[in-house]
Amino acid sequence: MSGDAEQVMIRLGQQAKNAAKVMRMVDTQAKNRALELAAAVLRRETAEILAANALDMKAADESGLDAALKDRLALNADRVDAMAEGLTQIAALADPVGAINDLVYRPSGIQVGHMRVPLGVIGIIYESRPNVTADAAALCLKSGNATILRGGSEAIHSNRAVAACLRRALVDAGLPQDAVQLVDSTDRALVGALLQSEKYVDVIIPRGGRSLIERVAVESRVPVIKHLDGICHVYIDASADRAMALNIAMNAKTHRYGVCNAMETLLIHQDAIDSVNAIVKGMLDKGVEVRGCEKTVAAAGKLDVKVANEEDWATEYLAAILSIRMVENIEQAMDHIGQYGSGHTDTIVTKDHDAGQRFLREVDSSSVIVNASTRFADGFEYGLGAEIGISTDRLHVRGPVGLEGLTTEKWIVMGHGEIRE
Amino acid sequence: MSGDAEQVMIRLGQQAKNAAKVMRMVDTQAKNRALELAAAVLRRETAEILAANALDMKAADESGLDAALKDRLALNADRVDAMAEGLTQIAALADPVGAINDLVYRPSGIQVGHMRVPLGVIGIIYESRPNVTADAAALCLKSGNATILRGGSEAIHSNRAVAACLRRALVDAGLPQDAVQLVDSTDRALVGALLQSEKYVDVIIPRGGRSLIERVAVESRVPVIKHLDGICHVYIDASADRAMALNIAMNAKTHRYGVCNAMETLLIHQDAIDSVNAIVKGMLDKGVEVRGCEKTVAAAGKLDVKVANEEDWATEYLAAILSIRMVENIEQAMDHIGQYGSGHTDTIVTKDHDAGQRFLREVDSSSVIVNASTRFADGFEYGLGAEIGISTDRLHVRGPVGLEGLTTEKWIVMGHGEIRE
Repeated sequence: MSGDAEQVMIRLGQQAKNAAKVMRMVDTQAKNRALELAAAVLRRETAEILAANALDMKAADESGLDAALKDRLALNADRVDAMAEGLTQIAALADPVGAINDLVYRPSGIQVGHMRVPLGVIGIIYESRPNVTADAAALCLKSGNATILRGGSEAIHSNRAVAACLRRALVDAGLPQDAVQLVDSTDRALVGALLQSEKYVDVIIPRGGRSLIERVAVESRVPVIKHLDGICHVYIDASADRAMALNIAMNAKTHRYGVCNAMETLLIHQDAIDSVNAIVKGMLDKGVEVRGCEKTVAAAGKLDVKVANEEDWATEYLAAILSIRMVENIEQAMDHIGQYGSGHTDTIVTKDHDAGQRFLREVDSSSVIVNASTRFADGFEYGLGAEIGISTDRLHVRGPVGLEGLTTEKWIVMGHGEIRE
Repeated sequence: MSGDAEQVMIRLGQQAKNAAKVMRMVDTQAKNRALELAAAVLRRETAEILAANALDMKAADESGLDAALKDRLALNADRVDAMAEGLTQIAALADPVGAINDLVYRPSGIQVGHMRVPLGVIGIIYESRPNVTADAAALCLKSGNATILRGGSEAIHSNRAVAACLRRALVDAGLPQDAVQLVDSTDRALVGALLQSEKYVDVIIPRGGRSLIERVAVESRVPVIKHLDGICHVYIDASADRAMALNIAMNAKTHRYGVCNAMETLLIHQDAIDSVNAIVKGMLDKGVEVRGCEKTVAAAGKLDVKVANEEDWATEYLAAILSIRMVENIEQAMDHIGQYGSGHTDTIVTKDHDAGQRFLREVDSSSVIVNASTRFADGFEYGLGAEIGISTDRLHVRGPVGLEGLTTEKWIVMGHGEIRE
């Protein structure tokens, strides 16, 4: 790590820690006011933000950034407005901070419970999309945290413009502007320095492609909440309602292809082999390439099903490709999910109560679903309001991460002079 | 890392992962039966365990291990019986696994909630006390996890004997014996290999001295739940009942000196200066060395109070030493705690409702207490039954860690054929 990067990060870290001390005590109204002001500033400064974005787009053209990344990078008036609207929606969410739970009397006479409190300082490392600057900062702000944002170098001008709006709003709301800080440099050593800042930063949340996430996971001395693969399954049980199974399979695969909670592999009980034809036909009609095990290929008859290999089961396509495997029973389905799945989201379609309950209990994924599309694994659908990401980790928070995932609990004790005997 | 150590740890890790897959599905009755059997085996094998312990004690004599460590290492029939009794108590605790919470209907029609599930594979790295082998393994077992135990080399024979009893009981209960594995070697490279086993181990819990904890925190690529310092405070507010304040201060300091939740610094509101004399006298009578700020020294008159320096405020004595500081108001008390405290446990003694509520809200420690001794920060006192340790981290679990801290939650969804529109 270069000494300069370390110095920059110590300064940002200390400023964030000081801001966090204030932010954790700020009441809900003041935080909401800051978010509403930020939305207004973003709208007011649209022209300035778009001008900054144009600089990034120009650099992207020059460096030959690919089309998908350029689409993520691009802002227009609608996208800026959507960013502002997002802040307003976060202002409308319930504030988790300060909630007291499970307060009980103990035999000693003391009353013991939990109080929900902010995590402290949250580092966000992300790529391309400048709207993450606003979304992530707003979620951290609403949950009483300070945040250090490190966006991709390709979006530096856009991120700078958006972060400036948020900081202006914080000042206008009478809150510390260092509650939102952008690492205002494209020096890659700063990412390394941020990952070594365990003295100042309580958690790092990386958002982006797999290589980014893996680098962060390997290098970080700060705890990380991360999202790796989403190899999601739908399992059609023998007893499944066939129309429901078709409907769920189509939605899970074709609603959106590039999302982490899309189905990648369909497992079908051999007694539900009669459902293969309609599903394969439906997928092909939507332009989905289908790869199946031998039995599936046979069952599909003349329909165009390619032969799936071992690698298919372990692949997150994020594309219009589906693998299908026939299984002998629910155990084999759950074994397949355990072996090839990524612990993200898995669905069973069944009419059998015991099979459904067993799947819920035994499948070890962050979301386990009976009779609904995998696409429901989402912060909005689960009622979190907005999400900062989806965790495929096991510690602290699993699945969609909303405001509560950005907080922790402390123990509180109320006594009447009690001492330990 | 040596290749050999890595190979050993891959084998242990795979075995643990396989055992964890079984353990997470085992019902409460079977887990309790294994614990009861383990208690019986420990009692039956007392002679063998003591013979193994004698080998460790002999080696400790030869290597000149200090008296305190030798006391921790030593077993006798009573200590083995206490170990067995501990297992029986853990069997009696409620099983957190499988509990479903917060199940609500969403506007889409799906029902969403959480199910509590085991963390998976837990690595425990500890020193000296062989009873940790039984305690930690039993807590992990009851919470449906597999555990890899790495005790201190000075206790290797004792730990081996205790672990053998637990593994025998697992087999007798029809459960996988690899649910409890001891790293059966004193090779230090194995600790390094365990800390790099993020593929197999879900969390590491180090228990021991500060240097062990710090090594683990720095080196580990597996998430760590750890306990660092316990610089705990009692703050006597202006309005405090003087008899209660004296009582709590004496208990917090003198109930036990070497524990993490003992008071190290007493803060006294300047309007409660009248309480100084009785407290200092009480401490001196108990043989506690008192170090005070200038005002405290002056208020103590002829009583023997040494002058405290800056270093005193930042020191966890773990000994019969107390520092006392006079403060102008509650803000100064909370600032002191924020600056010098370790975020472990802090108490206010007050009759003022607002002051008590403010202290609860604003002090950022894992336990914040009104009108009770800091000594209550403990798994048994909080109703957790037994604790695997106290976390001074912020993520996942804070304060005393019981069975629930060894679990996580997954999302469960029950639908009726719902799809995302």
